Amino acid sequence: MSQATPSIAPDQKSMEDIVALCKRRGFVYPASEIYGGINGFWDYGPLGTALKNNIRDWWWRQTVECPPIGPDGEPLAIVGLDSAIIQNPKTWEASGHVGGFNDPMQTCHQCKKLFRADHVSSMLREAKWAQSLYEATDGLQHPSEECAAAAEQWAKKQGKKLAPGIEESHKDLKVLSPQIVLEVKTAIEDPLFEGSHTCCPNCGGSLTKPRAFNLMFESHAGAIQSEDNKVYLRPETAQGIFLNYKNVLDTMRVKMPFGIAQIGKSFRNEVTPRNFIFRSREFEQMEMEWFCAPDDAPKWYDFWKHERMRWWESLGIEKSNLRFRDHDDDELAHYSKMCVDVEYMYPFTSPGFGELEGVAHRGSFDLTQHQTHSGTKMEYFDQERQLAAKAEGKSKDEIDKLSKYIPNVIEPASGLTRAVLVLLCEAYTPDESRASKLVMKFKPRFAPIKAAVFPLVNKDGMPEVAHNLYKTLRNQHTVQMDAKQSIGKRYARMDEAGTPYCFTIDGDSLTDQTVTVRHRDTQAQERINLDKVPAFLDEHIKN
Amino acid sequence: MSQATPSIAPDQKSMEDIVALCKRRGFVYPASEIYGGINGFWDYGPLGTALKNNIRDWWWRQTVECPPIGPDGEPLAIVGLDSAIIQNPKTWEASGHVGGFNDPMQTCHQCKKLFRADHVSSMLREAKWAQSLYEATDGLQHPSEECAAAAEQWAKKQGKKLAPGIEESHKDLKVLSPQIVLEVKTAIEDPLFEGSHTCCPNCGGSLTKPRAFNLMFESHAGAIQSEDNKVYLRPETAQGIFLNYKNVLDTMRVKMPFGIAQIGKSFRNEVTPRNFIFRSREFEQMEMEWFCAPDDAPKWYDFWKHERMRWWESLGIEKSNLRFRDHDDDELAHYSKMCVDVEYMYPFTSPGFGELEGVAHRGSFDLTQHQTHSGTKMEYFDQERQLAAKAEGKSKDEIDKLSKYIPNVIEPASGLTRAVLVLLCEAYTPDESRASKLVMKFKPRFAPIKAAVFPLVNKDGMPEVAHNLYKTLRNQHTVQMDAKQSIGKRYARMDEAGTPYCFTIDGDSLTDQTVTVRHRDTQAQERINLDKVPAFLDEHIKN
Repeated sequence: MSQATPSIAPDQKSMEDIVALCKRRGFVYPASEIYGGINGFWDYGPLGTALKNNIRDWWWRQTVECPPIGPDGEPLAIVGLDSAIIQNPKTWEASGHVGGFNDPMQTCHQCKKLFRADHVSSMLREAKWAQSLYEATDGLQHPSEECAAAAEQWAKKQGKKLAPGIEESHKDLKVLSPQIVLEVKTAIEDPLFEGSHTCCPNCGGSLTKPRAFNLMFESHAGAIQSEDNKVYLRPETAQGIFLNYKNVLDTMRVKMPFGIAQIGKSFRNEVTPRNFIFRSREFEQMEMEWFCAPDDAPKWYDFWKHERMRWWESLGIEKSNLRFRDHDDDELAHYSKMCVDVEYMYPFTSPGFGELEGVAHRGSFDLTQHQTHSGTKMEYFDQERQLAAKAEGKSKDEIDKLSKYIPNVIEPASGLTRAVLVLLCEAYTPDESRASKLVMKFKPRFAPIKAAVFPLVNKDGMPEVAHNLYKTLRNQHTVQMDAKQSIGKRYARMDEAGTPYCFTIDGDSLTDQTVTVRHRDTQAQERINLDKVPAFLDEHIKN
Repeated sequence: MSQATPSIAPDQKSMEDIVALCKRRGFVYPASEIYGGINGFWDYGPLGTALKNNIRDWWWRQTVECPPIGPDGEPLAIVGLDSAIIQNPKTWEASGHVGGFNDPMQTCHQCKKLFRADHVSSMLREAKWAQSLYEATDGLQHPSEECAAAAEQWAKKQGKKLAPGIEESHKDLKVLSPQIVLEVKTAIEDPLFEGSHTCCPNCGGSLTKPRAFNLMFESHAGAIQSEDNKVYLRPETAQGIFLNYKNVLDTMRVKMPFGIAQIGKSFRNEVTPRNFIFRSREFEQMEMEWFCAPDDAPKWYDFWKHERMRWWESLGIEKSNLRFRDHDDDELAHYSKMCVDVEYMYPFTSPGFGELEGVAHRGSFDLTQHQTHSGTKMEYFDQERQLAAKAEGKSKDEIDKLSKYIPNVIEPASGLTRAVLVLLCEAYTPDESRASKLVMKFKPRFAPIKAAVFPLVNKDGMPEVAHNLYKTLRNQHTVQMDAKQSIGKRYARMDEAGTPYCFTIDGDSLTDQTVTVRHRDTQAQERINLDKVPAFLDEHIKN
């Protein structure tokens, strides 16, 4: 029996290798690749789509169809929703996304590149031209004639090539602006600098002042493009839930506390999409809004924080690769009372962690905003609380206050596409001892292909037996049949796809009705009866 | 035992009633309703989302995970894909959607309303003002002084109120334009009129000439809104498949013939969204592109035509409510060689039929266009055909011709949201004998809620038994527990939701461990053992 392939730490995994595997094996392709791609958009290939669907279905099952057991031992009440991506634009005025959802940006007059204002300093620090200029003027006092001369000389030699924007932006100036030298010094020497820059990290040209830039994609519904029919692609699925809070309350016989959950695409016009599918312009979210009485909110915040961590662990993620990070007060959005991130140690953040899910206590901010902007009452009358308060002999005012309220909201919000990335990173395991040099160790439940069926050779009656087994298994599971190339190559392909089990039909199968099961993680092989294969698979892929 | 509720014909179902039920029971809500809605967009409520997911999963299972058996007795090869909604805009130049995807439109100079040019005639025919003018000049020869005088008098009296746009548009004219009388006569007397009109069906004002209007939603990716970064929301999922044809071929070990399937949202900026979710601006598609050798295409066209009809029948739709409609040659898109619609008798088309799915023979149009525009070779080398041709002793030219080709494509393309509409219409069955006055007869497999568990009364130990049963069933199925109100009201609610089975725990349950099963369609009741309930449900909801 072979050795089980050991798991390795995230900092020993290369993002480049993972991205290459994703392309090679059909997990994720760059969108519009034949047209040179399009920045920030990705297509999910056959295996990636299956992986994504498996995570989606697991979240939906565990959230909507079979919600968690609450603190009282009874299942929680959560219903599903699928709201439109395009909503009445007043939605985004009420939510604060029009006006508020802005990042200050700077464009370069010369190379036309766009930068987030708060990223310029660190980009400048790493820019080749800035480092070169810094070295050329190193140790010289600034401002001073000596320094200016060194900078001028640099501009005429190295600068010409490294930072072509400087010459372009200096057409009316005779000497290199001392401001550039100062900004480079500041960027390199003071990592905590919080002011803004005027020179471009890319070409050295001159940047515009920081300007607000809305992250929402805009469009127009209707024939004429005018301000009147401007619409937005939603930047989050959450608002679709708030819009329907009243509808759900009026039609679904739910009472406090209850949840509304939704999975769907959202769009953010990110200035610098990056890290593969971690930050893309089109992505899929899994969000749930939990409505409850205001004084119960802290209890539920705590409940959902731990419940969500349990859920991430149920995907087969190593506990040591997950952690909580509570937001500091100065990090909180203005409407948020408490917020905690579930973080994962991505290969590109390792040994640090990066955001995976946010669990936020949003108070009554959203419902109150929509009540103000739409005129629809969002107040809830809580009969149970009224009865309890009466029984306790409270005053009429106290009873009213306890039984009529705008609910508070606890929101666990995660990215489905980000969950795909996490499972890809988590499963990716280099192993020099294998033909494939790597194995994707997905938990069987999430594996895109549950099992493969191989005839050892494509003759002597083996293909027929294999075909029959394949046809039986495919009625229940996602399985593949492969008869081509050597068995070693076929195993290697399935290791790359993360297929947990391979069933091989060989000469013995024809006489004794047994097959070889090969276990992905250990490469161990065992023989079981042909007619036991369906039950074997049923049982093992529940893991 | 009660009588089974008989099915009724589509023309006896009222769309208004169906839309009202959808709102009342949480199937479909108008999007952004608290802000007065937004024309052409809909939100799917808890029951509608479940219904839609059930159809989605069935299509995916039957298409991708367990594809149909082909003519040779072996399962077909079809893989899944999930491409981005926003792609490189060159995609839509190649596909012909930029430039080609246009409807001629007319706007009214006075009331600013927008009309599809080919709809104006029928709208004019039904306009109150046009009918009034027609009556006022009925029987009078046109043009004649008598007719002009009658029209003039009409314009000063009834016309002033019914068609305010006429006065506004006639400021420089002294008398009513004879053109208006002529157009009204034409619209009312000649339903086949194919020319264009100049007067507005809404207000009688003057229309612009018909102008092309692109149905694609436009947006911009990146910070600056310019022609350079204009993007489109996809009007169909199909092009995402063609973009990835080469990627799939290179990474998935598929060979001709094979399919790529996708489910996802598409957007069309319809000028007049209508008929509930039949024609909305944001909708969900289920499309599959079947790639094959050109000379096999007619055979596969025929295969998919019948396969798709079988699939629709598997949803539980009455055969008499479905039909094929082959497109006439003059109806075919320029790239399409053959096309057939699967049609359904909607309440709003009855006794006629309306489109449900199109099965199109697209030839090699799309791949050829993308080859031309992207420079990526789309040719396929067919080794099996080469070997066969060699074995038949064909010439080198013949062998080359047979073994190298750009595949032809057969495309079964349907709407997931339209499938939801069809199942809602099909299931909707008025029944005066029931408390709910109607029952939603979904096939159990597609029912949003599979079963409800009721304690007969909410005391005497019944709630505890019911809770335990509920907790057992919810691990496998989507079930609801309801303890409030009379049992009759609870049955009525489940009839409206289309829940096929209700299990009631009563006093006897506590002593003899049996429960009552109530069958939705017949209202028949039977008693079964409590511990047989899970197996009963497993078996019955497979239907």
